[in-house]
Amino acid sequence: MTEHHVVVVGGGFAGLQLVNDLKCPPVRITLIDRRNHHLFQPLLYQVATTLLATSEIAWPIRSLYRDRPEVQTILGEVVAVDSSSKSVSLSSGERISYDTLVLATGATHAYFGRDDWEPVAPGLKTLEDATTIRRRALLAFELAERARDVGEREALLTFAIVGAGPTGVELAGIIAELAHRTLPREFRAIDTRKTRVLLIEAGKRILPSFDESLSDYAQRSLAKRGVEVLLGRPVTECTAEGVTVGNDFVPCRTIIWAAGVKASPAATWMNADADRAGRAIVEQDLTVPGNPEVFVIGDTASVIEQGRPVPGIAPAAKQQGAYVAKVIRSRLEGRKRPSPFHYRHQGSLATIGNNAAIIDFGRIKLRGWLAWWIWGLAHIYFLIGTRWRFAVAWSWLWISVSGQHSARLITQRETIKDATKAQDNAA
Amino acid sequence: MTEHHVVVVGGGFAGLQLVNDLKCPPVRITLIDRRNHHLFQPLLYQVATTLLATSEIAWPIRSLYRDRPEVQTILGEVVAVDSSSKSVSLSSGERISYDTLVLATGATHAYFGRDDWEPVAPGLKTLEDATTIRRRALLAFELAERARDVGEREALLTFAIVGAGPTGVELAGIIAELAHRTLPREFRAIDTRKTRVLLIEAGKRILPSFDESLSDYAQRSLAKRGVEVLLGRPVTECTAEGVTVGNDFVPCRTIIWAAGVKASPAATWMNADADRAGRAIVEQDLTVPGNPEVFVIGDTASVIEQGRPVPGIAPAAKQQGAYVAKVIRSRLEGRKRPSPFHYRHQGSLATIGNNAAIIDFGRIKLRGWLAWWIWGLAHIYFLIGTRWRFAVAWSWLWISVSGQHSARLITQRETIKDATKAQDNAA
Repeated sequence: MTEHHVVVVGGGFAGLQLVNDLKCPPVRITLIDRRNHHLFQPLLYQVATTLLATSEIAWPIRSLYRDRPEVQTILGEVVAVDSSSKSVSLSSGERISYDTLVLATGATHAYFGRDDWEPVAPGLKTLEDATTIRRRALLAFELAERARDVGEREALLTFAIVGAGPTGVELAGIIAELAHRTLPREFRAIDTRKTRVLLIEAGKRILPSFDESLSDYAQRSLAKRGVEVLLGRPVTECTAEGVTVGNDFVPCRTIIWAAGVKASPAATWMNADADRAGRAIVEQDLTVPGNPEVFVIGDTASVIEQGRPVPGIAPAAKQQGAYVAKVIRSRLEGRKRPSPFHYRHQGSLATIGNNAAIIDFGRIKLRGWLAWWIWGLAHIYFLIGTRWRFAVAWSWLWISVSGQHSARLITQRETIKDATKAQDNAA
Repeated sequence: MTEHHVVVVGGGFAGLQLVNDLKCPPVRITLIDRRNHHLFQPLLYQVATTLLATSEIAWPIRSLYRDRPEVQTILGEVVAVDSSSKSVSLSSGERISYDTLVLATGATHAYFGRDDWEPVAPGLKTLEDATTIRRRALLAFELAERARDVGEREALLTFAIVGAGPTGVELAGIIAELAHRTLPREFRAIDTRKTRVLLIEAGKRILPSFDESLSDYAQRSLAKRGVEVLLGRPVTECTAEGVTVGNDFVPCRTIIWAAGVKASPAATWMNADADRAGRAIVEQDLTVPGNPEVFVIGDTASVIEQGRPVPGIAPAAKQQGAYVAKVIRSRLEGRKRPSPFHYRHQGSLATIGNNAAIIDFGRIKLRGWLAWWIWGLAHIYFLIGTRWRFAVAWSWLWISVSGQHSARLITQRETIKDATKAQDNAA
């Protein structure tokens, strides 16, 4: 066992791209993740909003490397790195030593110091987050159908999404479509078309990473779908009763958090400098300063190019994974080291709803149904495996034609009981 | 609002068939279920064993009746029936009055007085049960991959299924296929082909409701797939350490309960006589003795024909739902009441694994790949909606050709952590 041992922590876009590209024979790879599945995060909001099933966007990591015997997958949680003995520690107490370590542990949502908001305003990073949001949204309609008090009913039919980046916009658009297009004929006591969907953004416009003309189009398109966009005022309080925007309290029972991002503790493990969001500040070759055998990539790395941070999106993570694979290969082969990492921005995409999306390729800007089709085809292309490409395409085709969402399940029974009881007590 | 009000409790096969068939204008129908979805229970074991996604076999009940304004769906839990005031009480405190009441609340698994076994030997009745079993089975392989102790590893790679009716046989067959066909190339430290799958049955043969020649075929077919069938000895103890069969203790970490059935408390609500499993003993027209306006149908009713109980399977439940719809219609139209309920047995089906099933049509008995195809087509036919027929057919086609199961997700993070920690402490 004199092979070079590369330990990769995190099976997201960055980690998988690295393992995919690192196919030179004398390397043994250990891939560690807390979950048994890779999550196709760009479509997670579609699970939260009942468009897709959980298993359509999550694949067991070890199945992806079944044909590569040199890759071992471990379900485990890394809790520390010891760079002097070159080993990582798992929560199980197990230690795994490395020759090269790649930390690709991603990010989670952040509440800007108000972590007490999390229980009432869940964010969207894991499959469980998505099923939680799905359950709450569907339960709100169910409870509204039975509510006797008008104020209570209106609060149940009010949905607040905090943060108007792509995830917030996509959530707001689909929830509005669910209320206005899918559900109306199914309820008898309530008119789901009276549902209020609020998209709350502290900044001056939605989708700030896009060109202003596209932001404008997206905002008009959301308004047409019944989404109320509130700009320029931050959320100052979230409770089980509602959300406070600036000084205005809005009663609502469902709040979804799509505002802040906080890096995983890779920088802490390495005792490395971090930016405000906790991202490790790395060298131009994505190594940790002073630790040339440790790389940090993806959402947990702070990479600055020409004064601007590389964005926390899947293509950037993949490029970093591919770059580090190249660096490791050239080191092992004794070649001169590659030039510094350079991020190529391929464009920004976001959907607003059925037949409406925006694409910002820089010079070329698209919007409407053409952008939606390109967005859909691109995402199907990037899914892993023919099996899932067909399944997701079929789901989308069906939803687009019928207006019927596919995965409207309220699961996790205890929570339903609790919610019903909470509602009973409130009533 | 002088329409006749029919309240149906339970959106399983019996309840839905009744609502589907009860389409005469002067009837208002309220359908109450604790869950927001109808579950296609005959395929639930395929969710537990990673073949299908949850949303492929569960559909929101209210979406099924969106085109019937006289049908109102309520997400709620019935806790009592007051037959003197003709009303049902929900756990929310709400009371709903009825002119005709149909109780179709189904059954759950029973442990013959050993309810303390439930935490270590979960049964399979709900979507949550299925994802629990899926998580435990997949985690067992993950933990075995990291286990350092040989005995611990073997216990993790031993799966015990208690009860050899169709569900037990189907679970055993697929878990064996998962271990022997899907997983071997994905693990590095363990050989998943050494997995032991035990099918434990207190009776003298598996699948006692089938002809003996088919039972024999199924047993040989299971043996070929690596399932060890233990007959004639009951399970005497289930713990986190293993299962005791007669006097023999077998260390194992995953036990699945497919043995007993206990009716829901419909009989108790009605103060009606019940059989040993708690099923309400009903009149020949499926009403509760002394309560001609209350029907009990499906798995929670005890219906005896020519000295033999009508089996607790989907076709029987549907026939009872259809029969009661006919009785209600003829009462409302003042026609003479229909002849007593008569169950027509259409045949028994069970799968053993890929390309192997048995069908007992009485005279005609089929086994092998032909039975498997008929089984598959029949189940696709009985799914609700074109969307799901295509989706399930595609999933099965893919699995059959590739051997790759579709929905191998370990979800519900806290439990993973707990399991990992429990394992750590044990190690």
